[in-house]
Amino acid sequence: MQSASLLSKRECGACARRAARQTARVNSVTADLVGKLRALLAPDRVLMADVDILPYSFDGTAALKQKPGAVVFPLTPEEVAACVGAAREAAVPVVTRGSGTGLSGGSVPVPGCLVVCLARMDRLIEVDEKNLTLRAQCGVITKEIDDAAAKAGLFYPPDPGSMKISTIGGNVAENSGGLRGLKYGVTRDYVMGLQVVLPDGTLATLGNKCVKDVAGYSMKDLFIGSEGTLGIITEVTLKLLPRPQARRTMLALYDSMEAAAETISAIIAAKIIPCTLEFLDRVTVECVEDYAKIGLPVDVEALVLMETDGHPAVVEEEAARIMDLARQNGAREVRAAADEAEGARLAAARRNAFSALARVMPTTILEDVTVPRSELAAMVRFIRECARRHKLRVGTFGHLGDGNLHPTFLTNERDTEEMHRVETALEEIVGETLRLGGTVTGEHGVGLAKKAFIRRQLGEASYELMRSIKRALDPQGLLNPGKIFDL
Amino acid sequence: MQSASLLSKRECGACARRAARQTARVNSVTADLVGKLRALLAPDRVLMADVDILPYSFDGTAALKQKPGAVVFPLTPEEVAACVGAAREAAVPVVTRGSGTGLSGGSVPVPGCLVVCLARMDRLIEVDEKNLTLRAQCGVITKEIDDAAAKAGLFYPPDPGSMKISTIGGNVAENSGGLRGLKYGVTRDYVMGLQVVLPDGTLATLGNKCVKDVAGYSMKDLFIGSEGTLGIITEVTLKLLPRPQARRTMLALYDSMEAAAETISAIIAAKIIPCTLEFLDRVTVECVEDYAKIGLPVDVEALVLMETDGHPAVVEEEAARIMDLARQNGAREVRAAADEAEGARLAAARRNAFSALARVMPTTILEDVTVPRSELAAMVRFIRECARRHKLRVGTFGHLGDGNLHPTFLTNERDTEEMHRVETALEEIVGETLRLGGTVTGEHGVGLAKKAFIRRQLGEASYELMRSIKRALDPQGLLNPGKIFDL
Repeated sequence: MQSASLLSKRECGACARRAARQTARVNSVTADLVGKLRALLAPDRVLMADVDILPYSFDGTAALKQKPGAVVFPLTPEEVAACVGAAREAAVPVVTRGSGTGLSGGSVPVPGCLVVCLARMDRLIEVDEKNLTLRAQCGVITKEIDDAAAKAGLFYPPDPGSMKISTIGGNVAENSGGLRGLKYGVTRDYVMGLQVVLPDGTLATLGNKCVKDVAGYSMKDLFIGSEGTLGIITEVTLKLLPRPQARRTMLALYDSMEAAAETISAIIAAKIIPCTLEFLDRVTVECVEDYAKIGLPVDVEALVLMETDGHPAVVEEEAARIMDLARQNGAREVRAAADEAEGARLAAARRNAFSALARVMPTTILEDVTVPRSELAAMVRFIRECARRHKLRVGTFGHLGDGNLHPTFLTNERDTEEMHRVETALEEIVGETLRLGGTVTGEHGVGLAKKAFIRRQLGEASYELMRSIKRALDPQGLLNPGKIFDL
Repeated sequence: MQSASLLSKRECGACARRAARQTARVNSVTADLVGKLRALLAPDRVLMADVDILPYSFDGTAALKQKPGAVVFPLTPEEVAACVGAAREAAVPVVTRGSGTGLSGGSVPVPGCLVVCLARMDRLIEVDEKNLTLRAQCGVITKEIDDAAAKAGLFYPPDPGSMKISTIGGNVAENSGGLRGLKYGVTRDYVMGLQVVLPDGTLATLGNKCVKDVAGYSMKDLFIGSEGTLGIITEVTLKLLPRPQARRTMLALYDSMEAAAETISAIIAAKIIPCTLEFLDRVTVECVEDYAKIGLPVDVEALVLMETDGHPAVVEEEAARIMDLARQNGAREVRAAADEAEGARLAAARRNAFSALARVMPTTILEDVTVPRSELAAMVRFIRECARRHKLRVGTFGHLGDGNLHPTFLTNERDTEEMHRVETALEEIVGETLRLGGTVTGEHGVGLAKKAFIRRQLGEASYELMRSIKRALDPQGLLNPGKIFDL
């Protein structure tokens, strides 16, 4: 570096422009931009009055809120592209949202930004029974995807907790998980094609209806889970499966978490892959029972919900073996739902876990750490001891089969001293997760909530790799800035 | 642009260096570099004599050959990183290879380049039965992966035709398919983690053993199928499944390709997803029978091989239904293999298809076009008519269930006039593939062989997106240059 010429120490015009682009001071939405957007869309689909835009200043994540400059509601991919183009010209950041159910702050606005709300792009385009695919605009509700598949005897397996209100575009952007991850995988495993608007406002089609395709880098896989930082997903082509003919739901109650974890290991060792293996700890069971009054015993250490699906003969056989294994591994009580209706009621206990916990205290901080399945019992034990040590109330529930845990802190953001203890506990939980080979987020995404931990988890090389891709695709840093990492 | 200052028209030092990097004239391997490499590895693991390096001047692709400058055989990721670092300093391009079974020229050297052969990094590190994962160095043979899984009652489903000799690193770099794609997916679906050496010589770990992980962009998915252009895969962590307990192999013979395709549609419509649905056309059956003498009837238009696997009760039921559907849809003859041994013999007919075709004429040009399953009969008909129109001998076989076809031209590269007709026919087949919503490569990769078609398939936006990623990760363009696209 010492041999660098004088010239190289001064910036030339091209360098200066490049640097300016990369560190550009971003602007807020102006009346001029709003005028342009109203001309591009329709006046009633561009909101900027405080009372109108306040509902778009937060998502499902506790304690995060920022007021945008305006909110637009495009109806077509071309309108999305036009909005991105206009925002880019004005150097105004763009934050995308669907239903705003995210749990990592991924849709929380940057102050003064343009929020592009895609909830009205809700057309289900096609169910193709011959190719087992479904095409939909990004704003279609996830449950409607599976309902449409079901009408054709088909199945869209990913079932995030929010599936009754979340949009498919949001699911793809976050690579959402769900209760069936162990057997059926996550959203990524069902995305065959995407239409996206790139940061420069061009429309690109990634992937297609072919079951096999290796024509170049898998750009769709880069966009899945990129949390709105690389482009805006406007349409999805999804893979469907034949709908399982039968399903059996079972419940097992345990006096120790270790026994519950042992049961899961025994099930896997028996070469059975159930579609669902969920658990609720004592705190969570108490809250759910208090909330939903479904007759759950409140003196158990772990309630485990198990489901097997598929061919009726296999379901019967697997259900019997699973219940035997639960008993052999110390379950206090094991029972199967008599029918689909009772099965759905039992499953509702798990689906209500978060809502039930959320009503106990003013602030609910829901974590999403995930460890290799073999480390699950150790991790649950660590969380319990950590909560005790810091005198915190934590309910833990989650996906036993895939190691994805949701320790949920019941607290009050106004209690500064307690919040400080929550933060310390979170730090310790993250440390233990990484020590066990886990990830700080299994299904909720990084967004703002996990940003502080991501570099430590990924390591320098992998973290810088990710940033270099963001810089290559969005050199101005206008799409969802500050999420996942800083540029 | 007209307002640019004088300064901005001159290049500053930083700009000049950047430009030099991007348009750098690449060098050939020198004695100096070989000396450095011999010091980094061991003298006997760095070859440069003609007689030693000639076997590394081609892969499994017809008519493509280039002599490298040297070939190295690293044993550890650190040695790979050191080789890449040394080559980079000398601005010498690096081309990676495993067993060299690729069918799109992905491992064909650039003249004078450094070939990094990973075949000796063949240590199977771990089978983790609790987490259903397997870790291996990149040079482990694919079949050995599944054999190791089988010992634990587990299953690695991807089974490319070359699985007895290809390496797992090559499979991941090409995102290899196989015969079980319809039910089990392809290599990508089983990769949980990768260790890679980046173009700048640093080692990065991507992914982990967690079933769910959404911590940032899925960098592993970017590297899967990137054909050695973004980094060198040194280690893989794979997902395993419980091994299916039962398997049934069936054979159906047809007097028309349309009837065979109808059978497949009927099977899918009946919500059955067999693990294998393969077909051979008349030309291919003749060649296989001539080669392997397994008693196949040579007067059929289509021979269809079907396999179902899983729980014994389900396998029996599905096999019976599949055979009924074949008969109802016009199969001349349908039969089930009496046992595993006969099943394996029937499957061998399909596995031998390429070898059998390859011995007929001096040059075998194997294509890899793939269409949505619903368009398969139309595509097969088009290929047949195209071959007839251009007076060419073409045997077609492939994966009926996933629309992946292998029309194979039996020709002679010395016959210039016939090669010209082959090229015209290929152009027409690609055109029809894209018209039907297909891809020019379902499982073999782009490499050099499909490079001419990729831009047309992807469209400008998607193509440029891919190139921008290559430029961001490998600005000097030293890793496998000229494959997939030109920078």
